[in-house]
Amino acid sequence: MNIEMIEAAAARLDGVARRTPLLSSPFLDEIAGRRVLIKPECLQHTGSFKFRGGYNSVAAIDPETRARGVIAYSSGNHAQGAALGARLHGVPAVIVMPQDAPAIKLANTAALGAEVVTYDRVGGESREAIGEALATERGLTLIRPYDHPEVIAGQGTTGLEIAAQATEHGVTEADVLVCCGGGGLTSGIALALEAKAPGLKVRPVEPEGFDDVKRSLASGQVVTNNTQTGSLCDAVLTPAPGELTFPIMQRLCGPGMAVTDEDALRAMAEAFNRLKIVAEPGGAVALAAALYHAAEVEGDAVIVVVSGGNVDPAVFQRALAGFSD
Amino acid sequence: MNIEMIEAAAARLDGVARRTPLLSSPFLDEIAGRRVLIKPECLQHTGSFKFRGGYNSVAAIDPETRARGVIAYSSGNHAQGAALGARLHGVPAVIVMPQDAPAIKLANTAALGAEVVTYDRVGGESREAIGEALATERGLTLIRPYDHPEVIAGQGTTGLEIAAQATEHGVTEADVLVCCGGGGLTSGIALALEAKAPGLKVRPVEPEGFDDVKRSLASGQVVTNNTQTGSLCDAVLTPAPGELTFPIMQRLCGPGMAVTDEDALRAMAEAFNRLKIVAEPGGAVALAAALYHAAEVEGDAVIVVVSGGNVDPAVFQRALAGFSD
Repeated sequence: MNIEMIEAAAARLDGVARRTPLLSSPFLDEIAGRRVLIKPECLQHTGSFKFRGGYNSVAAIDPETRARGVIAYSSGNHAQGAALGARLHGVPAVIVMPQDAPAIKLANTAALGAEVVTYDRVGGESREAIGEALATERGLTLIRPYDHPEVIAGQGTTGLEIAAQATEHGVTEADVLVCCGGGGLTSGIALALEAKAPGLKVRPVEPEGFDDVKRSLASGQVVTNNTQTGSLCDAVLTPAPGELTFPIMQRLCGPGMAVTDEDALRAMAEAFNRLKIVAEPGGAVALAAALYHAAEVEGDAVIVVVSGGNVDPAVFQRALAGFSD
Repeated sequence: MNIEMIEAAAARLDGVARRTPLLSSPFLDEIAGRRVLIKPECLQHTGSFKFRGGYNSVAAIDPETRARGVIAYSSGNHAQGAALGARLHGVPAVIVMPQDAPAIKLANTAALGAEVVTYDRVGGESREAIGEALATERGLTLIRPYDHPEVIAGQGTTGLEIAAQATEHGVTEADVLVCCGGGGLTSGIALALEAKAPGLKVRPVEPEGFDDVKRSLASGQVVTNNTQTGSLCDAVLTPAPGELTFPIMQRLCGPGMAVTDEDALRAMAEAFNRLKIVAEPGGAVALAAALYHAAEVEGDAVIVVVSGGNVDPAVFQRALAGFSD
């Protein structure tokens, strides 16, 4: 992995991915006690940053192999990113998703033209085994959700934009809080910032109880979560940091932060009130960290990635009902 | 009014106003039966396009007069735009608002440092009379919400961006649906497009029963609404087209369109689901027209302005509960 791969991804995504703006609100600055700049990847195609890595990975396959199709496994956002990436290249996509994924993510993935295969996440079925078996059987190219170089490179284009936009806003030294599951977005942004804005330091943010990356960074070795369910933050629930992503994060990122589901719901309500964007729980953990764990952050400014907005209306209503008056 | 005034406004707003992106979703294209490009001014500072005109108007006052302060009357969005415009220039602002304006708009205007004076809209108090009396008494400069050249010029910068962004998307001929109250945004965009993208034609969209602009354009003379309350779309409820804005709209815009409150709520739910943005009812009428009155639109593509997102959570929850599953 290197910056040239991220720049190649940016060239492939030019005019295809959306260059999301950098948002802010004096009301959020007041809560956080410092300037807060928000990169809203919920506004990306398919409602999350995952379109960047999904599209880039499909684009990077040689055309003959690509024509046979791709396969991905995902709790939902990578599914949609890979599905749209495949559709824009005119090739078939098979997506393996947990049967308890949010209904909107299952429905949207199918509506984007993918064949959706569900598995039982709680019962212990292995999505990796299902994915690899189908890939072999049909000659599909497997696009892993984070431990995949072209996925990391695609997500890293978010970091290239942050580097340029932060400079425009006069911010050259700050923590960059990133919602973190397997670490594809986190490590990609970290690589981009290392090259383009070395005063910006990436800090992964996870849900409490699912803070495998935080604990792995603290202990210097990969540790896993005990469970994969029980948080509203479905987008960032992964068992352990990736084999490719962890060494990058170990070199460039940290320390990690963790927030509760309640923090995430409150941050969703603030994003609604102050930024007029829709964040999903897992996509709001970094904003929650900036707002409600400000003492763990240093500096006059903090940059926050809101990584996705694919939330079922009932969960969003819960966020509004609980916190917005 | 001319394009030079809009370009001067753009120069004042450069690096101050947000250049909002142009969004889209294949799901919305399918509903509308054509390509839909959305300009989300809910993502603008203060949650609506009104910041453009408010800031530009304050900036255009000579410094000595400006130092005495400004006054504005508004149902809420112009209030916030003028308040922040004044704050960024370090001058006082008095804002006259109806006492039944959405709570979030009243609270935010005060939080932006303005002195809020309320009046009884239903009981027939005149905000114009209150505003002009206070302006005279304190030496404040009155910034009218739409019949004000520098306000129209500021709102027109939205049109400069639409012209450039539509071209980037390969769209040079299309209807541009604009949420319309007094016509400041509508006439400003129309002037910008006349100069920069003459194949794009502005069509004002209003709530049913409050379609004074539509009826005025159809009849060739100014007609008024019978009432000013009774719609959820508070942001676009004005008694009649403006004296400055109507001749511009008459020359460049139409025919108008009108949608129900239910259409607006459904469009808010689609904007939540598909674009991950928060639209207020009055800010969603143009999107509603594109989605649910598609037969009244011509062409392969349509451009839509979502003009604001300052909605109370209870109203937003009503939109989600009714329409999003």
